[in-house]
Amino acid sequence: MTTRLAVLGAGAVGRSVAQLAGEYGYAVVALADSSSAVVDPDGVDVAGALAGKDDGAGLGDADPADVLAADYDALVEATPTTLGDAEPGFSHVRTALERDRDVVLANKGPVAERFADVRALEADSHGEVLFEATVAGAIPALATIDDLGPERVTAVRGVLNGTANFVLSRMAAEGLDYDHVLAEAQDLGVAEADPSFDVEGTDAALKCVILANVLREAGCETVAELRDRELALADADVEGIRNVTGSALELAINDGRTVRLIGEATREGVRVGPRLVPQNGTLAVSGTRNIVKIDADYSGDLAISGAGAGGEETASAVLSDVGRLG
Amino acid sequence: MTTRLAVLGAGAVGRSVAQLAGEYGYAVVALADSSSAVVDPDGVDVAGALAGKDDGAGLGDADPADVLAADYDALVEATPTTLGDAEPGFSHVRTALERDRDVVLANKGPVAERFADVRALEADSHGEVLFEATVAGAIPALATIDDLGPERVTAVRGVLNGTANFVLSRMAAEGLDYDHVLAEAQDLGVAEADPSFDVEGTDAALKCVILANVLREAGCETVAELRDRELALADADVEGIRNVTGSALELAINDGRTVRLIGEATREGVRVGPRLVPQNGTLAVSGTRNIVKIDADYSGDLAISGAGAGGEETASAVLSDVGRLG
Repeated sequence: MTTRLAVLGAGAVGRSVAQLAGEYGYAVVALADSSSAVVDPDGVDVAGALAGKDDGAGLGDADPADVLAADYDALVEATPTTLGDAEPGFSHVRTALERDRDVVLANKGPVAERFADVRALEADSHGEVLFEATVAGAIPALATIDDLGPERVTAVRGVLNGTANFVLSRMAAEGLDYDHVLAEAQDLGVAEADPSFDVEGTDAALKCVILANVLREAGCETVAELRDRELALADADVEGIRNVTGSALELAINDGRTVRLIGEATREGVRVGPRLVPQNGTLAVSGTRNIVKIDADYSGDLAISGAGAGGEETASAVLSDVGRLG
Repeated sequence: MTTRLAVLGAGAVGRSVAQLAGEYGYAVVALADSSSAVVDPDGVDVAGALAGKDDGAGLGDADPADVLAADYDALVEATPTTLGDAEPGFSHVRTALERDRDVVLANKGPVAERFADVRALEADSHGEVLFEATVAGAIPALATIDDLGPERVTAVRGVLNGTANFVLSRMAAEGLDYDHVLAEAQDLGVAEADPSFDVEGTDAALKCVILANVLREAGCETVAELRDRELALADADVEGIRNVTGSALELAINDGRTVRLIGEATREGVRVGPRLVPQNGTLAVSGTRNIVKIDADYSGDLAISGAGAGGEETASAVLSDVGRLG
């Protein structure tokens, strides 16, 4: 039987999930953004709905709340990440799990800010929650950790924010200063008008909190134990790239090194900050590319690089998760 | 219930699988090398058996043939890779599948040389065959292709032989010639006394044949169709590294490039040979490290580097496969 998806969120990721679902053999039976929705048990006309949204007419005549009530197998939660209580994403996850449906998250909020709450709901549900797309876009970081066994993974570190990496690698390559490169990145659409979420390290820190909690969970027997041990953004030691100067980069380069915003997740905690790395080393990926290095017992370290963002790229991680649902 | 493993082969990989199985929550109920074996339904004393082998007394009192008849859930086939009919590995796979048992291969022979034969046996069995460890040691190349969907993967290329890569990267770094570095690699145990399997590209080609057949299989409806389309080693275009000179490497380096033995698998075929690659590029891994670059629709390219060989590292891929058996 074809897996039926309800897709919440019609930004770059939600839109691509809806557009590509058919290629992966799945049906989209509901699609919503924050103000409009379309529900069709026989399969939504995705192209028509998105054209309606682009024309200003909205995705369709349904109410966004109808999507959560639709008859789907898996909910794809791709609304924007929110901090603190992670709402409304968290309530969407709750509603789906209470109906014994599966959930695939692209929205980091529920797993970064309320991981134990999500696991508690999951424990009482026949539904399952997967969230590969929340960490490093197309890179299969969580699937690889799962395959290795999270109990054998000792540390995960890497370049987890493409915007910050673009800025640092352009500064290093061209000898330009931070403000100049940031403005260029904004012109190219690589950085947002308000870039603080990316350049202050918050986005990378949320990803590391998710990774650290996956590692910590491996040692927990119960959800109550996980609740005691789970980390939140406030526990992370975070420094952004705003204070990285062109002259600091030049000094690094003269020494065969460069600077990257490195996020690190271990069972002990989360640290994000600008670090010196060998210029030709594994972690020195360029442009918006991300890399995740996983240190594990027996297998040694594995380093996976790829697209850390982008609508289609992140949608591919969502759709791979749908394929993993058991 | 604890998964019970029968392990055939007690070289570096089989030995590590037997030693680590307990850490992964599996039991070893049988273990054999080519001349001796031990079978114990309550769990083999692995340390004792291996000590017996090292002392020249053999693994135990059983006959190697008893291992195939033992009451196990999954057979780990880690005997040496053989070409042509892939025997005796292929018969081991057949015996296990005919008994409806699962098989995890570290031995490349059966899947590189008789892929359609293996799939035909699998189609008639309740057992399943997995073979992550046959391609690039600890690197989860096949699991990632499976997650992406092999039908969406357009090409796989990379550095798939650690011995050849060690030789080329030492030649480039030290300005030494091939014979000198090969002798050094043999002293270090990185190259075999007869290094031809590695330096002539055969090992990398076998891995690429496996990868190409996994991609080709995605378009086949039946095993008969796969049989028509499957590639063998003889179909691969293979050139080794023996003719790479120190002066050719020097020229490459002066141009910002270096030489690596690159294997490439697409639906069209397999090519292995020394190629110019950017010196600081993704594919220019150093020493015995391997890298696999997977190009796929939507996700973009993913590059995974890690240990391409080694007993524990390859055993970790075998044991991850055991965890994937459904």
